[in-house]
Amino acid sequence: MAILFCAEGEDGEAWAQAIRAELPDADIRFDAKGPAVDEIDIAVVWQPPRGLMASLPNLKAILSLGAGVEHILRDPELPPRVPIARMIDPGLRIGMTEFVLMEVLRYHRREPEYREQAARREWKQLQQVLPPNRRVGFLGLGHLGTACAGEFVRLGFDVAGWSRSPKDIDGVTCFHGDDGLFGLLERTDILVNLLPLTDETRDILDGTTLGALPRGACLINAARGAELVEDDLIDALDDGQLSYATLDVFRTEPLPADHPFWDYPRITIYPHAAAWTLPEAAAPVLADNIRRARAGEELFGRIDVRRGY
Amino acid sequence: MAILFCAEGEDGEAWAQAIRAELPDADIRFDAKGPAVDEIDIAVVWQPPRGLMASLPNLKAILSLGAGVEHILRDPELPPRVPIARMIDPGLRIGMTEFVLMEVLRYHRREPEYREQAARREWKQLQQVLPPNRRVGFLGLGHLGTACAGEFVRLGFDVAGWSRSPKDIDGVTCFHGDDGLFGLLERTDILVNLLPLTDETRDILDGTTLGALPRGACLINAARGAELVEDDLIDALDDGQLSYATLDVFRTEPLPADHPFWDYPRITIYPHAAAWTLPEAAAPVLADNIRRARAGEELFGRIDVRRGY
Repeated sequence: MAILFCAEGEDGEAWAQAIRAELPDADIRFDAKGPAVDEIDIAVVWQPPRGLMASLPNLKAILSLGAGVEHILRDPELPPRVPIARMIDPGLRIGMTEFVLMEVLRYHRREPEYREQAARREWKQLQQVLPPNRRVGFLGLGHLGTACAGEFVRLGFDVAGWSRSPKDIDGVTCFHGDDGLFGLLERTDILVNLLPLTDETRDILDGTTLGALPRGACLINAARGAELVEDDLIDALDDGQLSYATLDVFRTEPLPADHPFWDYPRITIYPHAAAWTLPEAAAPVLADNIRRARAGEELFGRIDVRRGY
Repeated sequence: MAILFCAEGEDGEAWAQAIRAELPDADIRFDAKGPAVDEIDIAVVWQPPRGLMASLPNLKAILSLGAGVEHILRDPELPPRVPIARMIDPGLRIGMTEFVLMEVLRYHRREPEYREQAARREWKQLQQVLPPNRRVGFLGLGHLGTACAGEFVRLGFDVAGWSRSPKDIDGVTCFHGDDGLFGLLERTDILVNLLPLTDETRDILDGTTLGALPRGACLINAARGAELVEDDLIDALDDGQLSYATLDVFRTEPLPADHPFWDYPRITIYPHAAAWTLPEAAAPVLADNIRRARAGEELFGRIDVRRGY
């Protein structure tokens, strides 16, 4: 029994140490070659190379280091019967909640306009609205969307959300399905995208959906870059249909140095930094799923491969 | 019985309308001259001119439009027996809570550094700390300080506060008195000033107190400009003792066009916009105090003139 840790760009030693703090006897490997492939029963991964999972004959579980799993599912040779779990750790929820609170409040409190005024040495108080008159909308009401929406309910905002299947969340006006999407968009001043990337959500933020928002709305994309049609965003900002956008994710990451987003004054760019899985917070979740997989129990956060999340 | 409304720069008609929505028979005046001075029993004020309050022989209450009352107490001719109330309205609490959440989260989430990186087209994720490892400190634990501190307790931060007299607030490490001030400062990464302006708090943020913070701390002043020694702030920023400062209030407002704060890259300037008293939210509080004053009852939010708040 051995654990393969495969996540380029992550600090493997820090992860191994955090996992060993939970499972002192864990046999953690950083590669899988030769006869050793038979020993690996657990894979902890971020963007595993194509075919690697299929090369492990005794694999019992694939555990994602992130909330998304599209980086695993894009492997066409994925072994069909091995269960896959996404990461549901408190660190990720906390990070996303903080990030969404910060960015929505920036737009609610007109921080970009105050910053522009200050650059001109202009002292002018801007009209402020009370939170019941500010409509915040969430695309995606899963683990993270529900946590974020709850913060704004508590602060007194007018909160709505949209999800694939019907939801019932205290204080949140819930829309669902294809028909519900435009209902959500039409009543949203500040839109927060937290949808998982699937075939259905790819390119979901395009000229049509951005055009359905009230004029002057703001967008925060903290989900996946491939959900946003980049040229359509620029058009919507140029036209004034959107006032501001915060982008934490991009179709190509790192964002190429010659990308027009860098210089666009009403776009705020973060380097996919809204929320991470920190080893200290995530190791207990991984350890629990490793134990479950070895005991033949259902994984925590197991995803439905057909749905894609 | 008549109400004098005296607040330069405020929209008197909007206020009168909001007050009449609560008290339909209210007789609201915008000046007090001649025999009419005898009819005025209530003064609703912001920065009343010297001697005006003393010129009203039948005054029963002075009601401040803001949370602070130093703009009333600076009148040396203030009639000694007329009770004074500060404004405690939900709009002010909501506005300040939103503002402090936004600014503390900006520093906690290293937004200024990400903005600097983006200006150079640099894609780099910065080390993030979990909220239990971030120490937020509040100067002032009154109505607003307690509300703001509570938000950070709920989000899992390490929260402390300091006040003149001892306090006991769930989840908040409370310091008090002269001895407690440095205890609070030494353990604070992000300092939020919400103290009322009194003889004791004037110039309280100087080289000595700013120097007691851990190196690299951030300051948010959302209270009064006269509590901060401006040159000492510049020195602390130049030296690296402070990383960033957000200032909503200044010794002279509007901030003069030639003031060095405007161009200082690590100072964020707001035009005294953190929280206002909006007529729609404040009128019920004023109406209640007008009724109390006329019925001879204690005012809500009555201040202690000797203490100054």
